[in-house]
Amino acid sequence: MGSTSLFEDEPDGTQEAIMQATYRALCEHGYAGLTIQRIGDEFPKSKSLLYHHYDGKDALLLEFLSFMLERFEATIPDREHDDARDHLEAILDHALPTDLDSERAEFRAAMVELRAQAATDEAYREHFSRNDRFFRRRLAAVVRRGIEEGVFRDVDPERAAAMMLSAIHGAMQEEATTDTERTAAVRNELRAYVESRLVAPDDESEAIE
Amino acid sequence: MGSTSLFEDEPDGTQEAIMQATYRALCEHGYAGLTIQRIGDEFPKSKSLLYHHYDGKDALLLEFLSFMLERFEATIPDREHDDARDHLEAILDHALPTDLDSERAEFRAAMVELRAQAATDEAYREHFSRNDRFFRRRLAAVVRRGIEEGVFRDVDPERAAAMMLSAIHGAMQEEATTDTERTAAVRNELRAYVESRLVAPDDESEAIE
Repeated sequence: MGSTSLFEDEPDGTQEAIMQATYRALCEHGYAGLTIQRIGDEFPKSKSLLYHHYDGKDALLLEFLSFMLERFEATIPDREHDDARDHLEAILDHALPTDLDSERAEFRAAMVELRAQAATDEAYREHFSRNDRFFRRRLAAVVRRGIEEGVFRDVDPERAAAMMLSAIHGAMQEEATTDTERTAAVRNELRAYVESRLVAPDDESEAIE
Repeated sequence: MGSTSLFEDEPDGTQEAIMQATYRALCEHGYAGLTIQRIGDEFPKSKSLLYHHYDGKDALLLEFLSFMLERFEATIPDREHDDARDHLEAILDHALPTDLDSERAEFRAAMVELRAQAATDEAYREHFSRNDRFFRRRLAAVVRRGIEEGVFRDVDPERAAAMMLSAIHGAMQEEATTDTERTAAVRNELRAYVESRLVAPDDESEAIE
């Protein structure tokens, strides 16, 4: 999940400069082509700093993933929305944008590669378990709020969140690994799902079973 | 997509024996740990046959993916179902099984790794584009049939298929890359989506707008 404001500002310190270099190298080379050397090429300060701090590219990437997850968390549309339905739709639009510039598209593709490492690497697996738990809970909380407010039907919030998150992940994966762009179709059909499955009929909005 | 009857029989010939060895090695080592040598360890015949035929593990894996796609195509629940809704639900159950033995779970995890190669490798990308096109068309055909028969509402079959396929892919990806099992939740919520979004109300089943 997540197209976000990434590195638009100058980095604040060394750690942020390293993260920014990692982001750029990842966009340019993908996970498969990434090396500490190539991250160093994007790093304005002493490269020996990089070599001393990290025991290989995966150690650096895991720190990068934690750093990015915190940023993602901060950019998810929050409760400024009056209505749980508007809020949920804002999250879906945020998670499945269709106006990605090439850098962000490359970054999302690199994230699909990083996630695949979790199939065989326990540290990546822990990260993505935490990542998914966070986003699933966020989605479930919005659904739960909608139910409490009578805007949504009395569905299982966890189950609805699981399906929406899977559809988001699948669309991101397909976008990164095929020539067929289906992100807009998936987002629009998720909106139709919200309408038909979640939104409570008007005349029942006061007392939903 | 696909948990299928994979290699339950003895292989028919050399090609099938190679594919079977690749399947076993992939389940055991994943993509990251796979080498031609390790495929050779699972291969009962002359290993030099393997080395002569394939220019590295990716050439072999691409042939393996084509081979498996044909098998998957043959095992998707077909039109034996009376009703488009039953047919669609059978496909969803088939794509998101919850009773996977460890070998099949390992295989599905390896497929997530293979798909991630498509983020940077054109040959993998072509394969998965073809793969997704096939499954999306299959799903859309069932939705279209349901609309024609008045069982489903007049939705956009391509868009519905895109969302269902993304949810399936996302659930497979999460299953392979996290500790949290959400496959059953996703499948059940997809069924609820079919019910609320696709299935036509009874009283309108003759003349859906």
